[in-house]
Amino acid sequence: MAYVKIPYTKMKDFSHAVFSKFGFTEEESAIITDVLLTSDLYGIESHGVQRMVLYYKTIKNGRIHMDSHWEIVHETPLSAVIDNHFGVGQLVGHFAMTKAIEKAKEHGIGMISVRNSNHYGIAGYYAKMACDEGLIGISTTNSEAIMVPTYGRLAMLGSNPIAIAMPAEPYDFFFDASTTVVTRGKVEVYNKKGEPLPEGWTLNAQGLPSTDAPDILKNINEKRGGGILPLGGATEQYGGHKGYGYGMVAEIFASILSQGLTSNHTHIGATGGTCHSFIAINPNLFGDPEAIKAHFSTFLEELRQSPKAEGQTRIYTHGEKEVEASQRILAEGIPVNENTLREMKEICADLGVDMAHFLGEFDIL
Amino acid sequence: MAYVKIPYTKMKDFSHAVFSKFGFTEEESAIITDVLLTSDLYGIESHGVQRMVLYYKTIKNGRIHMDSHWEIVHETPLSAVIDNHFGVGQLVGHFAMTKAIEKAKEHGIGMISVRNSNHYGIAGYYAKMACDEGLIGISTTNSEAIMVPTYGRLAMLGSNPIAIAMPAEPYDFFFDASTTVVTRGKVEVYNKKGEPLPEGWTLNAQGLPSTDAPDILKNINEKRGGGILPLGGATEQYGGHKGYGYGMVAEIFASILSQGLTSNHTHIGATGGTCHSFIAINPNLFGDPEAIKAHFSTFLEELRQSPKAEGQTRIYTHGEKEVEASQRILAEGIPVNENTLREMKEICADLGVDMAHFLGEFDIL
Repeated sequence: MAYVKIPYTKMKDFSHAVFSKFGFTEEESAIITDVLLTSDLYGIESHGVQRMVLYYKTIKNGRIHMDSHWEIVHETPLSAVIDNHFGVGQLVGHFAMTKAIEKAKEHGIGMISVRNSNHYGIAGYYAKMACDEGLIGISTTNSEAIMVPTYGRLAMLGSNPIAIAMPAEPYDFFFDASTTVVTRGKVEVYNKKGEPLPEGWTLNAQGLPSTDAPDILKNINEKRGGGILPLGGATEQYGGHKGYGYGMVAEIFASILSQGLTSNHTHIGATGGTCHSFIAINPNLFGDPEAIKAHFSTFLEELRQSPKAEGQTRIYTHGEKEVEASQRILAEGIPVNENTLREMKEICADLGVDMAHFLGEFDIL
Repeated sequence: MAYVKIPYTKMKDFSHAVFSKFGFTEEESAIITDVLLTSDLYGIESHGVQRMVLYYKTIKNGRIHMDSHWEIVHETPLSAVIDNHFGVGQLVGHFAMTKAIEKAKEHGIGMISVRNSNHYGIAGYYAKMACDEGLIGISTTNSEAIMVPTYGRLAMLGSNPIAIAMPAEPYDFFFDASTTVVTRGKVEVYNKKGEPLPEGWTLNAQGLPSTDAPDILKNINEKRGGGILPLGGATEQYGGHKGYGYGMVAEIFASILSQGLTSNHTHIGATGGTCHSFIAINPNLFGDPEAIKAHFSTFLEELRQSPKAEGQTRIYTHGEKEVEASQRILAEGIPVNENTLREMKEICADLGVDMAHFLGEFDIL
């Protein structure tokens, strides 16, 4: 598939214009654009600006309610529960983590759970918001059911990522990972390439091992059974019950504490209903934040400098790859594939946005 | 290897007598005994009463300081850092989680990190303490370096378990798992049986895949390189970087926030230095605890009732196996292998404890 590279600032202005046309305010369009483009900068194309096409569809089909606004339904000095009333995920996410940060700065900890929301982009964006303020940031979300619990054959949990970020030098610690062995995005890449999946990623509708990407994706979409395995795989021998356990942890903080929809009840018909959690912890609860940061940085450097396996040249600490990807993509542009470009052009025609004005003309279209 | 089964109450009285002879008070011996026997009831022999032999050795060789007492070095209404001054792990663990529970009952959350400690038994014991009080309990610990980071060949993190427990009906949610693909205890079982390890569990001193249990254990003990892989295995294809990430999370809450020794610096010479964390969260921060518990119990029941993979009859929720194991072991007795019995007999001779008085005579000795 052909890719073009689009400069970050051009894509930012374009995304802003598109989301404004959807009906979002200037400030709202800026937040949504920042969440999506941060994913592109980190090299996570599946959660980046290409999502504008999906958002367009889910606004049109009524899954994202444009006329609703979130409501704080429970609040204490350390916590809150927010009902997003099926609004877009990024805006409530940005609001909720901002609130968690305020609580953590004032009281030491802020914990916010959100229900009745929609896809909010990468969990790590919100963890990083807290980290940028000198705090430990944590975010989890549930999502459309895609993870089959150990010994099951129906997807009952989402990809349920857990993200945690903490200040360190020269790179902040930044860990953001689905609790499935891989994301649906990776399965889709194999599907597009027409290649069999690696063994141990997915189960078919009978709950048996499968490498058939088209069949898996069809079954997930039609909720016919099967799906992606938890981190650790199909059995307890390699710890599949542990990945399933981490998926449960994401669910507890997102959908259980907010009394929202668990993954298996989201994305039924036109209803999304995703739930999220946002936690900020002030390291000053434990002592001098600078001393803690220095202590952590020393350990991270020891990890990077520790002996490599034969044939390997680097040990990464979490967050290093994202920093390097950002530098590269800011310099080279954001890679966008031709299908996405074509879909963007379609929605621009629909919305009355002059795509060429923002991005120029493309030979491949 | 031959096993005998010893009634729970007999073993409890025996353990209490042995730890009293080590020099612990009545109350201290009761706490340590309860932590160890809870592990046995859950079917985790490696962390159960057989550990008394190891504790005897580490008290004698000076790793556990019998004459020290913990010290609170930092405290806020929501948090504390405790220096255990190389005392035994279970006692500071019980104290710290008790303090976290008090803080959570009064303020909503309690977070305690502990440095300069020793092995504290199963992480889940402390998570369960909070759960038994109607709270969400979390505990993590670091441990002797045994996990090789992705693309490395030297163990830099411990088995670093994360445990979380939360009230539910009819079973509390109870998840307690090492962030390695398996524990050292599982490798030791293959070593004792003289069988090759499953592929994908361990690396040799060159950082290459190995199934040679005796070589792996020797390398770990002598810190020659190699060790156990993170959950997810050796490469990123199956998410090894995720297991390594969860190991880092355990490390952050235990050794980083307490400014204690990271796993790679513990267990050098006669120094232990393990670090732990204890977190209690009051669900009333998010609404009515009974409503939250009911919501969670519904999801857990949906998981258990969801369709099974072909050839499977049950889907477990985390904590169910521990409840069933406890019922069985309380009825049938705690299985103890002949080697452990022999070692217990030796330390009893040394300490002047009449083992036969507590446990009776054994044909196999």
